[in-house]
Amino acid sequence: MSTLDIAKKYVDLVKANQHHTILETLFTPETVSVEAAAMPGFPIEAKGLKAIADKGKAWTDNHEVHSAKLDGPWPNGNRFVVRFSYDVTNKPSGRRFQMDEVGLFTVENGKITREEFFYSTEG
Amino acid sequence: MSTLDIAKKYVDLVKANQHHTILETLFTPETVSVEAAAMPGFPIEAKGLKAIADKGKAWTDNHEVHSAKLDGPWPNGNRFVVRFSYDVTNKPSGRRFQMDEVGLFTVENGKITREEFFYSTEG
Repeated sequence: MSTLDIAKKYVDLVKANQHHTILETLFTPETVSVEAAAMPGFPIEAKGLKAIADKGKAWTDNHEVHSAKLDGPWPNGNRFVVRFSYDVTNKPSGRRFQMDEVGLFTVENGKITREEFFYSTEG
Repeated sequence: MSTLDIAKKYVDLVKANQHHTILETLFTPETVSVEAAAMPGFPIEAKGLKAIADKGKAWTDNHEVHSAKLDGPWPNGNRFVVRFSYDVTNKPSGRRFQMDEVGLFTVENGKITREEFFYSTEG
């Protein structure tokens, strides 16, 4: 599959809320996930399927998603970018906010080997 | 200046159409600019201020911009992403189209040393 094929599959699976399928079919055991800022209790860089799944679970456990919008993918060579616009409530604080970020994904040998998330870390 | 400061300055200067000021103040003589696909007559990777300015001029000479919208910047470490949504007409063909792409910028020592543009290269 081309980078664009992988990118489209990734977008379709996120829209279908099939995060487990993403990990199982598009990621490798060594895939690295990099945040712009560390979530409490998690390193800024998670390596491997379990670490990435744990981080994802911590996020979904703590947030209620009211709506989600994806734009892209935008490809260049073996990488692609996706934009995420989420309307969420952080459960512990009750604070509702608009999450606006982009992901940069690196594809090697038909799998996503690196995902990096870009977002404001100010206020 | 932080990466986010550079990013905001970049966005402000693009909005003000001050592309020369971007090259003169935010880029280095060795900055590299990478396209997702090569423009006719240009390499996919342009290195240095003159090559980047020439590529920019070729594009502006050949396109009329009806409207331009920038989203972002989204930062992560020493990089940031900006989204460009342009409504343009290609002058030679007369074809009007929506240009939708993202740029990924790398900052080192307070200057942008690499810009990479992501967009669909299909039909």
